[in-house]
Amino acid sequence: MELHLDLGAAGGASLRARLESALRETIRSGGLPAGVRLPPSRSLCEQLGVSRGVVTDAYAQLVAEGYLIARPGAGTTVADTGSPHRVAPPATPARAAVRHDLDPFVPALAAFPRTQWRATVGRVLRDAPDDRLGLPDGAGVPELRVALAAYLGRSRGVRTSWDEIVVTNGLRQGLTLLWAVLAAGGNRRVAVEQPGWRGVTETALDAGLEITPLTVDDDGLVVDRLAAHPEVGAVAVAPAHQYPTGAVLSPPRRAALLDWVRTRGGLVVEDDYDAEYRYDRDPIGALQGLAPEHVVYAGSASKSLAPGMRLGWLAVPRELVAPLADVQRRRGGMPASLHQLAMADLIERGGLDRHLRRQRRQYRRRRDALMVELARQLPELTVRGAAAGLFVVLRLPDHSDEAAVLAAARRAGRALEGGGGAPPARVIGYGNLPEAGGGRAVAALAASVRAVPPRIVRR
Amino acid sequence: MELHLDLGAAGGASLRARLESALRETIRSGGLPAGVRLPPSRSLCEQLGVSRGVVTDAYAQLVAEGYLIARPGAGTTVADTGSPHRVAPPATPARAAVRHDLDPFVPALAAFPRTQWRATVGRVLRDAPDDRLGLPDGAGVPELRVALAAYLGRSRGVRTSWDEIVVTNGLRQGLTLLWAVLAAGGNRRVAVEQPGWRGVTETALDAGLEITPLTVDDDGLVVDRLAAHPEVGAVAVAPAHQYPTGAVLSPPRRAALLDWVRTRGGLVVEDDYDAEYRYDRDPIGALQGLAPEHVVYAGSASKSLAPGMRLGWLAVPRELVAPLADVQRRRGGMPASLHQLAMADLIERGGLDRHLRRQRRQYRRRRDALMVELARQLPELTVRGAAAGLFVVLRLPDHSDEAAVLAAARRAGRALEGGGGAPPARVIGYGNLPEAGGGRAVAALAASVRAVPPRIVRR
Repeated sequence: MELHLDLGAAGGASLRARLESALRETIRSGGLPAGVRLPPSRSLCEQLGVSRGVVTDAYAQLVAEGYLIARPGAGTTVADTGSPHRVAPPATPARAAVRHDLDPFVPALAAFPRTQWRATVGRVLRDAPDDRLGLPDGAGVPELRVALAAYLGRSRGVRTSWDEIVVTNGLRQGLTLLWAVLAAGGNRRVAVEQPGWRGVTETALDAGLEITPLTVDDDGLVVDRLAAHPEVGAVAVAPAHQYPTGAVLSPPRRAALLDWVRTRGGLVVEDDYDAEYRYDRDPIGALQGLAPEHVVYAGSASKSLAPGMRLGWLAVPRELVAPLADVQRRRGGMPASLHQLAMADLIERGGLDRHLRRQRRQYRRRRDALMVELARQLPELTVRGAAAGLFVVLRLPDHSDEAAVLAAARRAGRALEGGGGAPPARVIGYGNLPEAGGGRAVAALAASVRAVPPRIVRR
Repeated sequence: MELHLDLGAAGGASLRARLESALRETIRSGGLPAGVRLPPSRSLCEQLGVSRGVVTDAYAQLVAEGYLIARPGAGTTVADTGSPHRVAPPATPARAAVRHDLDPFVPALAAFPRTQWRATVGRVLRDAPDDRLGLPDGAGVPELRVALAAYLGRSRGVRTSWDEIVVTNGLRQGLTLLWAVLAAGGNRRVAVEQPGWRGVTETALDAGLEITPLTVDDDGLVVDRLAAHPEVGAVAVAPAHQYPTGAVLSPPRRAALLDWVRTRGGLVVEDDYDAEYRYDRDPIGALQGLAPEHVVYAGSASKSLAPGMRLGWLAVPRELVAPLADVQRRRGGMPASLHQLAMADLIERGGLDRHLRRQRRQYRRRRDALMVELARQLPELTVRGAAAGLFVVLRLPDHSDEAAVLAAARRAGRALEGGGGAPPARVIGYGNLPEAGGGRAVAALAASVRAVPPRIVRR
């Protein structure tokens, strides 16, 4: 038998490596079917004009990998490696243009402090001891836990200590961990805001918990509904700026929620959503500060820096730290240690505070420009929610078909979200909407609102 | 009532912020019990010598946060915020010295390519489009998937395409995802190597799967035991360098495993553990290359760069990509996008290959030095396993009490692992053991081996 092998150009690879590769590819593509006996090494080496050792080494390698079978006295035959591999098309990823302009979950990506982050990573790579490159603790690297405890205390009124902080791979991952620990501890049912951020419900359901939806109105979560649900052990709430209603939990509701958790002995899970951004007054301090023994505080860098940062944190009652860190370790979910150290450096040097001050001004200008255009072009609709965060809520005319409006907007390429409640509403994010872009964006919105006739409500 | 408030030094904070903070802290510490009525704003402003607006604003803020209650006609009273918060000790993290010197899971942390990584991060921050700072795809950023598909094909013989790659937060996290998808697809039982890396078993059990342990001998997993377990749908195996035996899966076993998976229609999960490091010959290509439709290839940067990198990857049959990406997205487990982009840059520019070539030479020297010392100081014991990876396996005398030897070693501060099988053995990692340190390390080992008398075996 004569083999037709293309050994290709040298290109740095040894003769042996090229022979191996040629044989492997020929077998894979079906050019050498199973059971075929290869020429003895002494004849193949003559045929190819290479030394015999090159051929015997290549055969041995392919025997070890399972492409060939060597039997004493029977020579070397091709192994049965199944059907020839389909030749995959030369796939390359499409470079899709992602439009974030009205996405309520994305801060201004163009404002990400790239220069500062580069300097920060440089300092960490210069200064971090080698052991920080080992597997990080399940609760996070101590440097970041220390920085976060101080930062959250100072900026959000969170009462915590570094060893009550658990670093997570963003908020969703933090909730996933928390629900796993609560479920393992015998909790069965969590109350969530309705409408609310779907990440809370998805992660809780995935952890095997059951969901009790509670209404949200202009004062935030309607806490007194909890009385009718004695089986609820934990309540997830976004007091600072609720998505998608834009409501801020009112003082009486805050008090009622704390009453409930103290009486019931359960847990409040505070999603401190959008809390960095308040434009009309100082942000309201975290609920956690009033009852650190009963509240899990959850935050992230997704709105303050970028969702791609994948950094979040939980400030928890002390007894939850070890179980959370253990689940995190078992699942290997800790963010990269260099990444955690860089975040610690950014916070410690005041870089995050400076960035937030700059961004608050930018978002306020963007929000103001959007409000002017909404008043000018859609005067018949009212805007709900606090002057906070990265979105406004536009109340649609009664009996509007929210889904149809969204579909019309989607056809126009706009990343909108529905309000998901009653009355119909639409959420407009302005994190990535430059002031000058407000007019055109609202014109497109107005067109999609007016394209959809009011729905006929059947009673 | 007169309030004694320490407004502290200015230090940049406004009078109002200092008043708020002083009131908040006084309430938290129990200095102002629940129900106490605060002085009217007009008298407190006189007492403090500040404008009245400062006091009314501070009261309003604390009402919004829930520390105070304002009732029309009843003035402002302190809310019931529960018992005063225990004053946490001024906790600072202990800076524990971590000893990695004999840890089999940790590569040379001092050799991490810091300069190169810094340049890589700098390039990414300069060049990455803004949208790459948004939430990364659940399967990973395209740049890294493309780089990994080419790298794994070239270095490990993996047959894959960029869109069959799922980027994970390290190997454990990748397995956690995979088991979740398999369990959701109706799989119930996974066969694992016994002894083997506990990460495989832990993640599978956590996902609700059942475990069938299969023996490992000097030829790797004893594949024919699978015939007795028809209920097994997936087999996890480390063919390149099994932990903790050091065995390499033999060609007949590779063939038998592929036979099993093709006949059974199940899945082989190939943990390509330690595969970057082979000192006596070329590394053996991945099993996945022989049956890409039936094998999930799993790898990570933990041994090639550092465990703190938290980067791993799966090359999977195409139908598994979407479910894996979906679970990853729902749990928010994607590594940070900048981190993924930096890894892509390092691979594309050949930085990972260069690092691995350098490290192979270093580890080979370390292994050789360790072998010399073992032969000199512990000549009665044999070393098992291939000349590969980051550890050697020292076979202990028959009837040795492995646990007692480990305990003795632990008292000497050595990060050892037991072999976990029969015959008793001990795993010695040399990733962080400099050549000059081999003599002292083996002397300590010899002392702990000899400190423990052979165990009396009861029959």
